[in-house]
Amino acid sequence: MFKYRLLTPGPTPVPEDTLLELARPVSHHRTAEARQILAEVVEGLRYVFGTRHDVIPLTCSGTGAMEAALIQAVPRGGKALALVAGKFGERWLQIWRTFGVEAVAVQAAPGQVVTPSMLESALRQHPDTQAVCVVHCETSTGVKHDLRAMGELVARTDAVFLVDAVSSAGVMELRMDDWHIDFLATGSQKALMLPPGLAFVAVSEKGWRAAHRHQPPTFYLDLKKARDKIREHDTPFTPAHTLLRALRKSLEKIRAEGIENIWIRHARLAQACRAGVQTIGLELFASVPAEGLTAVRVPANLDGQEILRRLERDYGVKLAGGQDQLKGKILRIAHMGYIDFFDVLASIAALELVLQQMGFAVALGSGVAAAQRAFAEFRSD
Amino acid sequence: MFKYRLLTPGPTPVPEDTLLELARPVSHHRTAEARQILAEVVEGLRYVFGTRHDVIPLTCSGTGAMEAALIQAVPRGGKALALVAGKFGERWLQIWRTFGVEAVAVQAAPGQVVTPSMLESALRQHPDTQAVCVVHCETSTGVKHDLRAMGELVARTDAVFLVDAVSSAGVMELRMDDWHIDFLATGSQKALMLPPGLAFVAVSEKGWRAAHRHQPPTFYLDLKKARDKIREHDTPFTPAHTLLRALRKSLEKIRAEGIENIWIRHARLAQACRAGVQTIGLELFASVPAEGLTAVRVPANLDGQEILRRLERDYGVKLAGGQDQLKGKILRIAHMGYIDFFDVLASIAALELVLQQMGFAVALGSGVAAAQRAFAEFRSD
Repeated sequence: MFKYRLLTPGPTPVPEDTLLELARPVSHHRTAEARQILAEVVEGLRYVFGTRHDVIPLTCSGTGAMEAALIQAVPRGGKALALVAGKFGERWLQIWRTFGVEAVAVQAAPGQVVTPSMLESALRQHPDTQAVCVVHCETSTGVKHDLRAMGELVARTDAVFLVDAVSSAGVMELRMDDWHIDFLATGSQKALMLPPGLAFVAVSEKGWRAAHRHQPPTFYLDLKKARDKIREHDTPFTPAHTLLRALRKSLEKIRAEGIENIWIRHARLAQACRAGVQTIGLELFASVPAEGLTAVRVPANLDGQEILRRLERDYGVKLAGGQDQLKGKILRIAHMGYIDFFDVLASIAALELVLQQMGFAVALGSGVAAAQRAFAEFRSD
Repeated sequence: MFKYRLLTPGPTPVPEDTLLELARPVSHHRTAEARQILAEVVEGLRYVFGTRHDVIPLTCSGTGAMEAALIQAVPRGGKALALVAGKFGERWLQIWRTFGVEAVAVQAAPGQVVTPSMLESALRQHPDTQAVCVVHCETSTGVKHDLRAMGELVARTDAVFLVDAVSSAGVMELRMDDWHIDFLATGSQKALMLPPGLAFVAVSEKGWRAAHRHQPPTFYLDLKKARDKIREHDTPFTPAHTLLRALRKSLEKIRAEGIENIWIRHARLAQACRAGVQTIGLELFASVPAEGLTAVRVPANLDGQEILRRLERDYGVKLAGGQDQLKGKILRIAHMGYIDFFDVLASIAALELVLQQMGFAVALGSGVAAAQRAFAEFRSD
């Protein structure tokens, strides 16, 4: 018997008491209690995002929320920069192109990041760009982008700054207002510790000014309409209100721990995980790794899909592989949301066992011990 | 102590074992099990809709699903007929106009229906219409439309037939294929006995032919992309997969009871409810009432909002009022999904008590007895 351990970078495990919250009877969605819940979750999300601005809940996935932001930021015929370091950066580029925006890709090689200086020269080359979009944590490769430096650069221009914080909000340092972020989107199924079904967009005043210049072709994902409703603690359409009720519980936990402590906890998990996998002899894939997951290269001559299969079948450990062209080439261990140090330790121990069985030379326990040492010796400063 | 009784036409109560299903641990959404669930729920929904065609799950509300269908059916600059008998008919009209479609409203007075002959003359007057959209059960007024007759009329033309079945699928007779429906949309929070968060669109071959003539301005609600994925038992974006897992449970219940038995059960509840409220002295609002809810006029000189407030505060019975211009003028009692005869009886009994307390002459128990008699004497044929 092995317990099922979900260490994928979304969906992530949901705490047991939140699951029970999801099992509570359904109430109506247009009541004083429902309005109170909306007011509280908006306040809680403001705290997580580091913003005083509007936060709008949408019933959709993170992609729906990013679409809402992208089409609100730039009209058809407009121009934008998309910083692309993997699958999700690619996706936002594609959305703009779907909507007739001239989107210029600023591309990083797989496992690499787009640097602030790459953005700086792109902004010089395209002074007429109306928006810059970046993925904070590019979940497909495990890299993180330097939002603080990028936000400074974009703030000096008329362009708005859009951030996909789907697998970074509630994981790593994120300061929407201080970092001059104008549109920030995230989903429910990562560090907010909920099942998928809800997503959120926060919009700055500069963001709203851009949004008011045009009316994007959407009804369901109309952020201006949703903003007018949420300011009255309401939504334009029936929301996934049992998820909103459960989100309140997640946000209570986040407040109780403190967002800065949560960032430190994730950094510590990341450092421990990386020490462990590197000691086993695995190479990190990300040049600048994000705190929410660790991506490693599959060793030469080993079948990455087979490693994943054995981890799940023999040990109940569910990791993620690579997507699209990275399929079979990388493994991704998530340590975000409701995943703790001993879950990470279990995944390293299972990985050691599977790799040994597949003929890869591993000293059993070496990765585990290295992770423990890194965890014990971690200093946040 | 009174139990909370939710008799609103969405969200509706969720069965206790489905709630527990929602409390089960989260698993990954790209697994053999997840594909199996998708395959099963698509089959189950086909059964509910009466179709052999594609059924596409979307993570959004019913409005999102209708938007997906409407923009797929008619391109910008195209022309469509919107049959409007209330708030939801209005909404679909508005969506088309948002997307630059010349949408002609065929309007019924509040509480009335658009008749097949009104549609027939509109089709004659607008032979170039590319689509006809109708709400099967217009939840805002409680009327039902004659889809069978309308489908016949539309099938003789090149136009596609779009149906909002949000509060009718799993409630009243619905035969997508036999009735020549080309796009059919519904949500999770009505007769599918789930919380809100999922919606579904089914598309006929004629529907796909119309869809293939253009590419609508959407990425998240792109039905063609979603169809290619669902045919492989997959979704393009992270779906609300714990709701999909719970939907499997709802669909098992529906199959076990039999969809035609479910239609009869709802007709019986509707007949009982109507006998009850009419015996109390309340007047039905809908000229052709749908089986999923009963709308009644608020008696002259009584405050409709106060009736609702007292029902909930004093007796735990949650009914819906009117929306927009009908606010305070009607009451709506839902009897769809996981609401049984004794819930309906409780609502009639509570209504009798509240009306009496508010000075309206009621013989206590008269409505209840009438509902029981109608229930006992019900014959389906």
